[in-house]
Amino acid sequence: MKKHNYSAGPCILPQEVFEQSAQAILDFNQSGLSILEISHRSKDFIAVMEEARALVLELLGLEGKGYQVLFLQGGASMEFLRVPYNFMKVDGKAAYLETGTWAANAIKEAQLFGETEVVASSKAANFNYIPKDYTIPAEADYFHCTSNNTIFGTQMKSFPKTDVPMICDMSSDIFSRSLDFSQFALIYAGAQKNMGPAGTTLVVIKEELLGKTGRTLPSMMDYQKQIKGESMYNTPAVFPVYASLLTLQWLKKQGGIAGIEKINAAKAALLYAEIDRNPLFEGTAAIEDRSTMNATFLLKDPAHTEKFDALWKAAGISGLNGHRSVGGYRASMYNALPLESVQILVNTMQELERSI
Amino acid sequence: MKKHNYSAGPCILPQEVFEQSAQAILDFNQSGLSILEISHRSKDFIAVMEEARALVLELLGLEGKGYQVLFLQGGASMEFLRVPYNFMKVDGKAAYLETGTWAANAIKEAQLFGETEVVASSKAANFNYIPKDYTIPAEADYFHCTSNNTIFGTQMKSFPKTDVPMICDMSSDIFSRSLDFSQFALIYAGAQKNMGPAGTTLVVIKEELLGKTGRTLPSMMDYQKQIKGESMYNTPAVFPVYASLLTLQWLKKQGGIAGIEKINAAKAALLYAEIDRNPLFEGTAAIEDRSTMNATFLLKDPAHTEKFDALWKAAGISGLNGHRSVGGYRASMYNALPLESVQILVNTMQELERSI
Repeated sequence: MKKHNYSAGPCILPQEVFEQSAQAILDFNQSGLSILEISHRSKDFIAVMEEARALVLELLGLEGKGYQVLFLQGGASMEFLRVPYNFMKVDGKAAYLETGTWAANAIKEAQLFGETEVVASSKAANFNYIPKDYTIPAEADYFHCTSNNTIFGTQMKSFPKTDVPMICDMSSDIFSRSLDFSQFALIYAGAQKNMGPAGTTLVVIKEELLGKTGRTLPSMMDYQKQIKGESMYNTPAVFPVYASLLTLQWLKKQGGIAGIEKINAAKAALLYAEIDRNPLFEGTAAIEDRSTMNATFLLKDPAHTEKFDALWKAAGISGLNGHRSVGGYRASMYNALPLESVQILVNTMQELERSI
Repeated sequence: MKKHNYSAGPCILPQEVFEQSAQAILDFNQSGLSILEISHRSKDFIAVMEEARALVLELLGLEGKGYQVLFLQGGASMEFLRVPYNFMKVDGKAAYLETGTWAANAIKEAQLFGETEVVASSKAANFNYIPKDYTIPAEADYFHCTSNNTIFGTQMKSFPKTDVPMICDMSSDIFSRSLDFSQFALIYAGAQKNMGPAGTTLVVIKEELLGKTGRTLPSMMDYQKQIKGESMYNTPAVFPVYASLLTLQWLKKQGGIAGIEKINAAKAALLYAEIDRNPLFEGTAAIEDRSTMNATFLLKDPAHTEKFDALWKAAGISGLNGHRSVGGYRASMYNALPLESVQILVNTMQELERSI
């Protein structure tokens, strides 16, 4: 039976990425060798890394604008640490917007380095909205925000105008919608939503902003060293980077971000319309902040849980359970999830309604 | 044509690991989902992680001895940083043995944390031997060494007896030979030699030694947090961990470390015998310190280079070029390289001799 994978991450990737990457494990580029056994310094893999870095700049519209692209390891959580290492001056100060669990974790790491001002937080409302009225202190070394909150189903629809360098954790919505990406000093994202499998982290940096903190950095924390090493200061995560390249190539064929954005908008519109229409369900996030990537919703009457769960499981849907901090359901509709899968989910919601 | 892959890492893995992991990308455990798209919190992946951790302890003979196993990200270079974070006390001191480039890199990171004594170094001899007469200061918080030096083809055949906790970077020879692994406080290894593809790092820790430095640790640097999170404090490198499990399962079928050690010894004996016998070649490492994993050797007369390179390339051999710091050739004979491949290399060396 066809599966409809709503996993919040790692998550569904395009079918052709599965097929091409499986083939490369058996024989990469008709070399007679597996992608798993070649040197990262081989001509074939250097070409993979270079194409992946160039494609990221092309897809984000950042070519020729002074940005460098890195593929690192450790996930976004490692960037929570690298960000203050590289951007918070000795005796400096950072500003953070607290919109969810991951933002809170990023704040915790920054606090180890120096003064960390939380400019606004929606914690008291269990992060069900994005705070909008706040001031970013002009003297901050940087301002950090999280564009999409996977757990709580919220998404920043706009970003503040500020002269402070803006750093954004885009782990769960990068490559999903058009933005002026040049408003950011640094963008980072764990690969495992819209870019590839788990195991690599994308970092996009405005290079001229680096090297200004007065700190001595450990090698593995130093973005400048990683840039100089072209993401190969040490052995990179070869396979995750290769599978990410395949996913980026697929995205380009969909018309890039502009192309996929239309499909993502259609998927989100379809599901949220049903959540709002169907008397059995309700959304948990503030309507104006609803994420196009992760829709969080509840059954108004928990008594229907068993029946609904049986229905969507029977339809081949997986990964729909909500995070324990919110409960209910979370439908993650990343780039590779087809509109058809959302229609199947909507059908089961209507089936539940009819059956009661 | 059959390839004989002598790459220094990432390197050859067992053919069945390629086949099984390619299959899991198309359909993992007959779930209808790819290993690349499942949640790391899914039952199926938790089982992978648990089996991998248990198998490491079993293969190393460390079951029930107070050790914890982690699969982290960042490669051994990230452990160069995590080690002083977790083991060097505030105002403490570390002792390091300098046997190669990677040892030197580890030393550089430790120096950022506090007094770092290099107890001995073979740097002046371009690291062509392992220093043996040195004293580990009794007051050191730990002693760090590198068991095998990939670039220079040397290997520690024995380890010092000391009451100081011993930490060993075993990236390039773990799982290749029998040792009393319980003499180490901490063992770490980038996966991409004997354990799996690039993208995950194995860390094996004597747990009772942690938490004694007086330092406040960033979350991603904190071994105790990673232990508590069972290697899933954040999303792990799912596919590299899975392919590592497959490689560990393969190793167990070879009779574990004791089984593979015999084959590794036969491979090394065959190649070193030819290096010593053949008048055209010479080894670069001190004979008593020769690595069973990486054999480094030169053509006595560089004029034969073109001819020899053509011969081994024609035989299907790849990855034989030496590292730029040593030159000549490096034959990396990791666990998955069959004895047959070494025989092919020896044949080309003899062919060269006959042709001159």
